[in-house]
Amino acid sequence: MELLESALGADATARCGLATSPVTAQEAERIAPIFKALGDPVRLRMASMIAAVPELCVCEITPAFDLSSGTISHHLKTLREAGIVACERRGTYVHYWIRPEVLDALSGLLATA
Amino acid sequence: MELLESALGADATARCGLATSPVTAQEAERIAPIFKALGDPVRLRMASMIAAVPELCVCEITPAFDLSSGTISHHLKTLREAGIVACERRGTYVHYWIRPEVLDALSGLLATA
Repeated sequence: MELLESALGADATARCGLATSPVTAQEAERIAPIFKALGDPVRLRMASMIAAVPELCVCEITPAFDLSSGTISHHLKTLREAGIVACERRGTYVHYWIRPEVLDALSGLLATA
Repeated sequence: MELLESALGADATARCGLATSPVTAQEAERIAPIFKALGDPVRLRMASMIAAVPELCVCEITPAFDLSSGTISHHLKTLREAGIVACERRGTYVHYWIRPEVLDALSGLLATA
């Protein structure tokens, strides 16, 4: 199952799912942290907010949550390290965008149909 | 976004993704634990093993991991509580099977294309 090999590159056309061929221990070590990053309600909402638009300034993300800016930054860092979002600083603020190839690869991994 | 409403019922035809309409705080509280359950390498492998066959006896799962039977049971319980697998005891052993409607609903949630 070379799914995430391609997915975390750029080409997510390989669609071998969990139900097609069991993930190896090595693949699981690489893929699980991506699910873990989405496994927190705040991070899931952040990922969803970011995914719904071309890009989002951290200054637009922060007001949506009743959390300190440090906590917000920490969650965004987790999403970035998992490869779910990418970011770039422009002046004062960091701007985030989704990496659709990663979401689509996860989607393909989970699909059983 | 009524995705998981339907998904965790039976009909996963509603395909509104993260990227289509942001999840609400309430939806995130319900969905995140499912991702969290998959966010551990051992549980991800277990889910994948179970998904790859019609059903699997715990006595076939245990030998695949260098873990105590208590730890194995704990991970399986987490997958069951998240709704990813279902199970039934038959005699000495518990048998597990995947809930494809849940995997397919998560898949639909993540798909951006």
